[in-house]
Amino acid sequence: MGVGGVSKRIILGRKLRSSQLGETLLPKRIALPVFASDALSSVAYAPDEVFIMLSVAGVSAYAYSWKIGLAVAVVMLTVVASYRQNVHAYPSGGGDYEVATVNLGQNAGVTVASALLVDYVLTVAVSVSSGVQNAGSALSFVQGHETEWAVLLVALLAALNLRGVRESGAAFAIPTYGFMLGVLGMAAYAAYRASMGELPDVESAHLHIDPAPGYSGEISQAALIFLLARAFSSGCAALTGVEAISNGVPAFQKPKSKNAATTLLLLGAIAITMLLSIILLAYKMGLKYVDPHDLDRLTLPDGSPLPEGYDQHTVIAQIAQAVFNEFTPGFYFVVAMTGIILVLAANTAFNGFPVLGSILARDGFAPRALGSRGDRLAYSNGILFLAALAMVLIIAFQAEPTRLIQLYIVGVFVSFNLSQLGMIRHWTRHLKTETNPAVRRKMMRSRLINTFGLAMTAAVFVVVLLTKFLAGAWIAILAMVVFFVIMKGIRRHYDRVEEELVVGDEDPIMPTRVHAIVLVSKLHKPTMRALAFAKATRPNLLEAVYVGFDQETTDRLLEEWDERHIDIPLKVLYSPYREIIRPIVQYAVEIRQANPRGVVAVYIPEYVVGRWWEQLLHNQTALRLKGRLLFTPGVMVTSVPYQLRGSEIGKEHADWELERIRPGDVRRGRIGR
Amino acid sequence: MGVGGVSKRIILGRKLRSSQLGETLLPKRIALPVFASDALSSVAYAPDEVFIMLSVAGVSAYAYSWKIGLAVAVVMLTVVASYRQNVHAYPSGGGDYEVATVNLGQNAGVTVASALLVDYVLTVAVSVSSGVQNAGSALSFVQGHETEWAVLLVALLAALNLRGVRESGAAFAIPTYGFMLGVLGMAAYAAYRASMGELPDVESAHLHIDPAPGYSGEISQAALIFLLARAFSSGCAALTGVEAISNGVPAFQKPKSKNAATTLLLLGAIAITMLLSIILLAYKMGLKYVDPHDLDRLTLPDGSPLPEGYDQHTVIAQIAQAVFNEFTPGFYFVVAMTGIILVLAANTAFNGFPVLGSILARDGFAPRALGSRGDRLAYSNGILFLAALAMVLIIAFQAEPTRLIQLYIVGVFVSFNLSQLGMIRHWTRHLKTETNPAVRRKMMRSRLINTFGLAMTAAVFVVVLLTKFLAGAWIAILAMVVFFVIMKGIRRHYDRVEEELVVGDEDPIMPTRVHAIVLVSKLHKPTMRALAFAKATRPNLLEAVYVGFDQETTDRLLEEWDERHIDIPLKVLYSPYREIIRPIVQYAVEIRQANPRGVVAVYIPEYVVGRWWEQLLHNQTALRLKGRLLFTPGVMVTSVPYQLRGSEIGKEHADWELERIRPGDVRRGRIGR
Repeated sequence: MGVGGVSKRIILGRKLRSSQLGETLLPKRIALPVFASDALSSVAYAPDEVFIMLSVAGVSAYAYSWKIGLAVAVVMLTVVASYRQNVHAYPSGGGDYEVATVNLGQNAGVTVASALLVDYVLTVAVSVSSGVQNAGSALSFVQGHETEWAVLLVALLAALNLRGVRESGAAFAIPTYGFMLGVLGMAAYAAYRASMGELPDVESAHLHIDPAPGYSGEISQAALIFLLARAFSSGCAALTGVEAISNGVPAFQKPKSKNAATTLLLLGAIAITMLLSIILLAYKMGLKYVDPHDLDRLTLPDGSPLPEGYDQHTVIAQIAQAVFNEFTPGFYFVVAMTGIILVLAANTAFNGFPVLGSILARDGFAPRALGSRGDRLAYSNGILFLAALAMVLIIAFQAEPTRLIQLYIVGVFVSFNLSQLGMIRHWTRHLKTETNPAVRRKMMRSRLINTFGLAMTAAVFVVVLLTKFLAGAWIAILAMVVFFVIMKGIRRHYDRVEEELVVGDEDPIMPTRVHAIVLVSKLHKPTMRALAFAKATRPNLLEAVYVGFDQETTDRLLEEWDERHIDIPLKVLYSPYREIIRPIVQYAVEIRQANPRGVVAVYIPEYVVGRWWEQLLHNQTALRLKGRLLFTPGVMVTSVPYQLRGSEIGKEHADWELERIRPGDVRRGRIGR
Repeated sequence: MGVGGVSKRIILGRKLRSSQLGETLLPKRIALPVFASDALSSVAYAPDEVFIMLSVAGVSAYAYSWKIGLAVAVVMLTVVASYRQNVHAYPSGGGDYEVATVNLGQNAGVTVASALLVDYVLTVAVSVSSGVQNAGSALSFVQGHETEWAVLLVALLAALNLRGVRESGAAFAIPTYGFMLGVLGMAAYAAYRASMGELPDVESAHLHIDPAPGYSGEISQAALIFLLARAFSSGCAALTGVEAISNGVPAFQKPKSKNAATTLLLLGAIAITMLLSIILLAYKMGLKYVDPHDLDRLTLPDGSPLPEGYDQHTVIAQIAQAVFNEFTPGFYFVVAMTGIILVLAANTAFNGFPVLGSILARDGFAPRALGSRGDRLAYSNGILFLAALAMVLIIAFQAEPTRLIQLYIVGVFVSFNLSQLGMIRHWTRHLKTETNPAVRRKMMRSRLINTFGLAMTAAVFVVVLLTKFLAGAWIAILAMVVFFVIMKGIRRHYDRVEEELVVGDEDPIMPTRVHAIVLVSKLHKPTMRALAFAKATRPNLLEAVYVGFDQETTDRLLEEWDERHIDIPLKVLYSPYREIIRPIVQYAVEIRQANPRGVVAVYIPEYVVGRWWEQLLHNQTALRLKGRLLFTPGVMVTSVPYQLRGSEIGKEHADWELERIRPGDVRRGRIGR
């Protein structure tokens, strides 16, 4: 079995606890790229945001850039250390949602789920926007049309996922390792060139940055701290996706938890190395990088404005261009890998969204239809919903990663915090019963790590909230609140229904008699079949019912009825206003009232056609009638289908739909972020 | 009974041939406004189009304006004379569609129907655009935002009709008589002022018109004729709506046909008087009027361009402003009545569209659902469809009546022509059997009139086609072809199905046994009820079927089953891939194959909730399963509903929907144009 088949099975391995799964577990070298694309891809935009924020105070503030990089690295290490504890404690791969629900209760779980839903949307929007921006550095026809390209790309991803693309392990491994190779190779080559004393400058090195209004001249300590805090919280975008491995523990080879923890550490180390390399290189190579809206703050050395149409390339692109100035393929390789891994990260959201939906459905927080495997409709709706929201964001923020990132990080830290808090509770609970001193010591250590992690992520969360709330985080928070309220409402509804449906101790009431009526609109084959079927059920009373508008047609039908010697009485309901549904419902209600312990069985002949537009041409009245009769107690409605010749098309189509969506397709991707 | 109730009943009188209708018939004074709003409203824009066309050759061509008016009047009189024959021959009110179908066959009828559908859309677009343009003459905030206001107005009309407004006779009578009073009063007052020698000039009288490029200096005879032909065919827009009365004959007091014919003549006379008055006044008062796109061809007397922001008011508004320069309320009255009658004309299309749809449905050219009375869904879809198409046209042509009218008249003349041709056939056919010389003479006379009418309308049709095809008529023709093809396709489908369903002479096959299966997902009240109901039908074999995903849940259900001592065997279908539908369908097919002469009855417990969003949370699997089982021969599907407490809301809503759409509401409006 190839790598492709392996990894596909694994990503949904968590759910299929069948015995044959053992042979398909992931070695670390495959698990790393499968779970790391999202986390590593954020390295592509985090440095840009740090430099943009610092540039507000002019180029002098760039001296802080690597310190901020270090601070982000410390947070990341802390988060990695914390999630290593999750991995050991929850090897089932339930993710933050499970940790929060089990340890902190339903509301915390739903809060995490809301944050995750918002984050899926933002992952798509941010990754695609950043990917397009990177593409713009190499492809001039993308420049200036970023929004259109980003929307197009989201549409393409949605279409591919609607068609049901199957990702192979290679699809993860090649770009992820390619991206690592590109960035780390670039860093190594740059280090070599620096050691030779010939590290080149980036293209923007000769430019000058005017500080933003209010930041020129000496700035106050408070303003500086606020600025550094903003730069830091933007840099924390690099943390998104780190927790993914904690959802994938069951996919690892044994010892699962240990291997997962090791891979997590590896991922953290690589991400930190890449992030710090990029920031350090950018700083050393004289990068000047400002908010694309403030391009006029960039000036030429003589103070004159930039030439019309200057396009600011991304940080990675600028570094790659300079480092590989004598080896252009290197530049193209780095930029291409960056773009691909960003799109791959967006695609993971398309995979993860329905998985989260199915788990929420299982727990009653989402429509149950999302939880049934192979439900093409629900799956498609999820993809369209995700794509539509991402497109709205991309259009609203003109595909500018800098703007979108303001919304992004809040959700990530909501789940970080609740997850850490849940873990502390978890250890405390287990410590109450655990007596083995060695195990207790280990648990105490884990709790300490999680506590430290919580302190760190909580502090960062406060910084993020303070610095980003007005800049856009409020939108993300509002969206979370909306998701939260909807999910709680759905759960409340299901709970109420379930309560009402519990079978009491009373014996079920057996209906005493069945009064069957067959609806007749014409005397054709479907009617004959319905009459025959209804008769076969041997009801206590059987009659055919016709709703008559005018005497002429009614008489003709009655004649035909006699001619054919049909031995079932035909009752005519006269409807002067040409209504069909009301007289039938009324008649059913009357029968039932006359015999409250009986059942009315309504047989509706229906013919089945093949094509969707043919469906529109038939059975609309039957459909509405069935809908209406559902509300009438004591009535059961039976469709007696008559398959027309063309109906084979529809059947094949229905079968094909079932065929195409094998259970696995829907459960791809990972839960949680 | 008030006038409102009367007229509402009447408009749909044709269909309700009940005996009590006699007392509610329309006197001529009410019938006139009910049927005339559309025809008279076109007087509001036809003159403008004539002057715009003539202005191409400069102001000197305006000398032809009243001659063109006379030509249009002659055509109108001919059409009126022709339709008086229709009224006598087809007092049932079937309109052009009936005349064409009966006399020329199905294809001609469908062609007329296509033309009518296109015309409904254009009536809305043209009337609303013209109404907004008129409003702009009095309300400065409308100027320059005509498209937005027109779209808004269409949306408003659609919303009102979706809500189900009820028009009263007063709603027709007041604005129609108000409009007549306004225009004819204005003409009378102007005549009085002219007789005193003080007829004022309109505001544009002092302006100069530069001929269009190619028309300056001496123009060729051919170019002049072409220009006059274009002006004439634009002026023929005044004819739209004249035939409306021929659809409403059954609504008149006896003698119906005679009264209708008299009203038709009256309508023609009034329309001609209004049209000629406006054209003559405009000419005498020195109007200068050009295509709003060519405003730069209007110059000040000294040759300098018009001031920036000059807004060209409509012809009626300019005349009213000048005539009532000493009595401003008169101006506002005329403009307001013009705007209102135009909107009223648009509204008649919203009423007529579903009526035409229901007739087409009756004849199998439209989905049959459109033909069932009180079908809110179909009715709403018709309104939305009409509004959407009208909006598209308004936006595409920026709410400019001049542009839209290029599309308008083709459809009208298609039905005129086919209707006249049909009438000639009608008389010829009747003459073959008629022997009474007096009647024969009358028929010969009628046929002569219709022949003359056909000659006239055919000539105008050719002129319209030649002058307008490239200017936009091709769009209307293309749309007609599309409608035609769709309607024929639908009819072909219905014919094929009907043929297939005819009952042959063979005896219906009685199924030998019924194998009933009750689907169980949980052991709750709906399941218990379904089991009880299924048992009550006493099938030959009854079993409950559960689709099991895992051992644990399955075991729990089996235990519960035993505890409750349910005497129906429970069969578990094991589904390792968590599919539900496939195993059930497969099982049903197997049962059927084992006993091809038996029937499989599948009982599905469903619970019924109230609100629409609650519906989304339930029964999705049941719905899909039912859809799939319809394709399986020998299977009938029974829904056993269980009404939850909240379901009363849904029932009330369903009842309210039925209540609200009384048959009358849907059948309002007239058929045909």
